[in-house]
Amino acid sequence: MEAIDRKFMEEALREAEKALARDEVPIGAVVVYQGEVFARGHNLRESLGDPTAHAEILALRAAAARRGSWRLHGMTLYVTLEPCPMCAGAMVNARLDRLVFGAFDPKAGAAGSLMNIANDGRLNHRLEVTGGVLAEPAGRLLTDFFRRKREFPGKET
Amino acid sequence: MEAIDRKFMEEALREAEKALARDEVPIGAVVVYQGEVFARGHNLRESLGDPTAHAEILALRAAAARRGSWRLHGMTLYVTLEPCPMCAGAMVNARLDRLVFGAFDPKAGAAGSLMNIANDGRLNHRLEVTGGVLAEPAGRLLTDFFRRKREFPGKET
Repeated sequence: MEAIDRKFMEEALREAEKALARDEVPIGAVVVYQGEVFARGHNLRESLGDPTAHAEILALRAAAARRGSWRLHGMTLYVTLEPCPMCAGAMVNARLDRLVFGAFDPKAGAAGSLMNIANDGRLNHRLEVTGGVLAEPAGRLLTDFFRRKREFPGKET
Repeated sequence: MEAIDRKFMEEALREAEKALARDEVPIGAVVVYQGEVFARGHNLRESLGDPTAHAEILALRAAAARRGSWRLHGMTLYVTLEPCPMCAGAMVNARLDRLVFGAFDPKAGAAGSLMNIANDGRLNHRLEVTGGVLAEPAGRLLTDFFRRKREFPGKET
């Protein structure tokens, strides 16, 4: 595993911790450009009451706002969990260069597990994909969160 | 074809005309709840510089903001073009009941043409899907737009 990928995944894990602190499903993302964190996002679906407010979407929108364009050529997105179809599709739409994710998601992963939207030769853009980077801490954040939810049920997650 | 579906697709076409007036790819959407238009959206990708600002995403976010929840049970989304993977995935995430679209999109359609994210038994929610409603005017808006772009090239679309 590349040291640089571990470094930026640690930044994404820091974002996931911010989601956890708000009782959101703990998933975090950063967009990296020219070797530096360019934009950040963490899941805020409940807080914003927005079905699209996944970590990746918020990070992509922040990156586009900072660049002043919807085209994110030259950028890499790091996210703690394999993206869902919506998020993988957004990365294709944004013309992102590369996706690095932590834990695999066999239930809804759209970057290789259930389907592969991130790298589908039929679509007009393909990302380079690396999965499983710091998968253990990324996955543990999620399993701990859902275990607590089962033991101390509050709102549906 | 149900008269009610034609009526709401005409509303979506009106939204597409608003996108056209701003020199955006002319795609429009409405979200319908209990027989009335509950939220609207039209493509604003260039105007907002946002890779996620497709008509469907903006309409879903507007509907969620109005309802005060990311869960859009009981709602139907009408859109003039078959949704891309991002937008079909967003509809699944929002737990929308039903999707009605106009023109089929053989290049990127994710509600039956290229893939079927809107109704995939492996995901945790499935929509009822009806395609081809007022497909002719919806498709003509797009083909006219791209023909003009080729004849009078401006910015990339």
